[in-house]
Amino acid sequence: MSSDSLPKMQKAVRWHPPSYDVRVEEIPVPKLEHPDDAIVKVKYTAICGSDLHVYRGHGGPTQVHTIGHEFIGEVISLGESFGKSVEGRPPLYATLTVGNKVVAPFTANCGECHVCRLGYTGRCPSGVLFGCDALDGGQAQYVRVPKAGGTLFNLDDPNSWISALSSDERISVLKTLADTSLLLLADILPTGVFAATQAVNHPKVLPMVTGVPWPYSFAPEAVDTSSHNLLQPSDKVLTFAVVGLGPVGVCATISLLDILATRQLPFNVVAIDPTESRRSKMQAIYDGIDKSGKGTGQFSVSSIEGAKDIVDTWTAGIGCSAILEVVGNNSALTLAYDLVRPFGAIVSVGVHGEPQVPFEGRQLYNKNVSLDFGRCPARAMFPPAFDLLVKRQDVFGHVGEETSLIHKVVGFDEAVQAYDDFDKGRCGKVIFDPWK
Amino acid sequence: MSSDSLPKMQKAVRWHPPSYDVRVEEIPVPKLEHPDDAIVKVKYTAICGSDLHVYRGHGGPTQVHTIGHEFIGEVISLGESFGKSVEGRPPLYATLTVGNKVVAPFTANCGECHVCRLGYTGRCPSGVLFGCDALDGGQAQYVRVPKAGGTLFNLDDPNSWISALSSDERISVLKTLADTSLLLLADILPTGVFAATQAVNHPKVLPMVTGVPWPYSFAPEAVDTSSHNLLQPSDKVLTFAVVGLGPVGVCATISLLDILATRQLPFNVVAIDPTESRRSKMQAIYDGIDKSGKGTGQFSVSSIEGAKDIVDTWTAGIGCSAILEVVGNNSALTLAYDLVRPFGAIVSVGVHGEPQVPFEGRQLYNKNVSLDFGRCPARAMFPPAFDLLVKRQDVFGHVGEETSLIHKVVGFDEAVQAYDDFDKGRCGKVIFDPWK
Repeated sequence: MSSDSLPKMQKAVRWHPPSYDVRVEEIPVPKLEHPDDAIVKVKYTAICGSDLHVYRGHGGPTQVHTIGHEFIGEVISLGESFGKSVEGRPPLYATLTVGNKVVAPFTANCGECHVCRLGYTGRCPSGVLFGCDALDGGQAQYVRVPKAGGTLFNLDDPNSWISALSSDERISVLKTLADTSLLLLADILPTGVFAATQAVNHPKVLPMVTGVPWPYSFAPEAVDTSSHNLLQPSDKVLTFAVVGLGPVGVCATISLLDILATRQLPFNVVAIDPTESRRSKMQAIYDGIDKSGKGTGQFSVSSIEGAKDIVDTWTAGIGCSAILEVVGNNSALTLAYDLVRPFGAIVSVGVHGEPQVPFEGRQLYNKNVSLDFGRCPARAMFPPAFDLLVKRQDVFGHVGEETSLIHKVVGFDEAVQAYDDFDKGRCGKVIFDPWK
Repeated sequence: MSSDSLPKMQKAVRWHPPSYDVRVEEIPVPKLEHPDDAIVKVKYTAICGSDLHVYRGHGGPTQVHTIGHEFIGEVISLGESFGKSVEGRPPLYATLTVGNKVVAPFTANCGECHVCRLGYTGRCPSGVLFGCDALDGGQAQYVRVPKAGGTLFNLDDPNSWISALSSDERISVLKTLADTSLLLLADILPTGVFAATQAVNHPKVLPMVTGVPWPYSFAPEAVDTSSHNLLQPSDKVLTFAVVGLGPVGVCATISLLDILATRQLPFNVVAIDPTESRRSKMQAIYDGIDKSGKGTGQFSVSSIEGAKDIVDTWTAGIGCSAILEVVGNNSALTLAYDLVRPFGAIVSVGVHGEPQVPFEGRQLYNKNVSLDFGRCPARAMFPPAFDLLVKRQDVFGHVGEETSLIHKVVGFDEAVQAYDDFDKGRCGKVIFDPWK
């Protein structure tokens, strides 16, 4: 199908300034505007926690646009750059074809600049977030994807990404994965894996993982440490807190537990949220996953008020090795600071607003705190997120149950209500079927 | 010599509140107060940039005390804990003897708690900074060292630390090193190495070092990346800025260049300071070191105003891979933010004051910035700092020349003037000979 045979009009969820105003409207179907563009016919699209920043009018956009940045669908039209193999360009320009099933990360990125080659695709200088003034988003029947050869994952070409699974296993497992599950690869699952990956691999955490003190933890094989005071077994028990148990916080927790279990690292993990229903959902999800996904460490959910006592008991008052901050506000940062140990790390993947961060320089100096801020490079994090999705179908493979990350699948006719409910905490993650 | 035969009185440089008031006074010689204590007869002691925080009344102390935290000397008295090997205690309790030459890191630390075993000696929960209300400092003829078996380095026992040099080489080289040079191991050299080590080994920098994109940069050997877009040679050129060229900034720059040269990493380094005399000293030091210590990258000094153009030219406007912030104020942090690239790291080893850090959460999110704050764990950083000291005697081995880090060695009779001169930028680093 070429652009010529597309319908003229489509349904889309449009955000209107200044705030709390989304409307389902008939708008033109997008056209190819550049040789690198693709048009995707959307199968499913979802509301993300960070859509609420836009919804509430804090997100930056000021103009009417199609909201949303999570979508999965089928390529129905490709620009002139496709079908050719060009040295230095992403291989997808040569291999992607009309009809392929694709999932998009929440930002478009070129895939061929210095920043993208480093794997920092979320900050490609020519990248754009789906669902902003500059680019219509995913909550539509059709989406224009810029730099599509750098942006999209081709789920019909499982050899196009690295995996712990063999090529045959990937092909086989892809037939069994629901599109509602694969949609999680657009944002929340890679973002959770990004938080967990940064925390476990943080240099401040490394001495506990390698069993070798700082600074030899950077190169434990390079020096003879046999005659020196090394770590005792109790020193190697990692303690993490996850702050915020929205959908991304749950993904971060599941990813963290999976990494710790896979690498057989001893641990304590506390998952914190002020909302009881989120805590009980997290606990139910934890209880439901099998031993291989949760290792042998201690796990607890906690209110904000109860967290410090739990951490102090686990660590004799020292504090957490690292905090995964998955909220994006100053209360969460302050709690993270209170819980982290000296020489600890705070990994923040939440979308922060305009307030100045709530720390004096001296506070950060006095505790030797490390802070990692920022957006997940979802394109780069796709492969480990895919492997986790396959492993943890017990968590990510179902919809609408007590232990499901996804609350329900509805049509655009329920979009206005769904935004209001999600904003007020009356429902979990909602997926839209734009054709329902 | 035991405590009994020590003189009763000694000379010391005492700080008086509220600010800008140091006096050379006769005070009692310290006594052993705890079985883990040692008394050190000081050979040399020095003014450190961070002594100026105390001098100016911003450092926290409110009571009269002996200032200073850098000293080298000879053990003249040891508490009852010494001379015994006890399981779990630092080996120094068994091996240190009266008469040994020692250098102290700027904080005392126990060496036997969880935090110390991780190598985070600068934040030992029972640690104390020399030269504060709680513990008299190093600018005296005699110093009491608490937790001395965890704190001191025994320079007469070169097998007590890890080194790239063999034991025989260490013994041989130690005979040639001046005490004025070894004194740099107390603070400024390990702090410089700490900054450089964190910057080069930062996870955000790792893709350029390993040649493998994030997140595979954490485990480049674990995955087959042969069929994927890897980094091009130009992507691997690391760009660093050092902000602040006081003595620690010079040490950080020299350490950074040494690490880059040793690991044969391609690089650009810009060393920034608003003061022309500091820039020209840095350039002169750079010009004086031999090829093995400066590798094959580009090096430039710069004013604050000129730095962004240099970095933009080197990186096509992308920015620095990491910044070494060696000042400790908000102007330096703001400059660091302006110069760092998306997914870059700011490593801050400066002693910060009470102002809130000058960043909005959104700024940090939008650039995916990592920040590492805090005090050098000097005890843990001693071994690599020692190796650098040996290698770079062309920088650290002389006094009073145009390219010397150490401006002069004077007696306590010049202490009051030296503080005033150092505070006003009229001289470089000053060492005191308390017996002169």
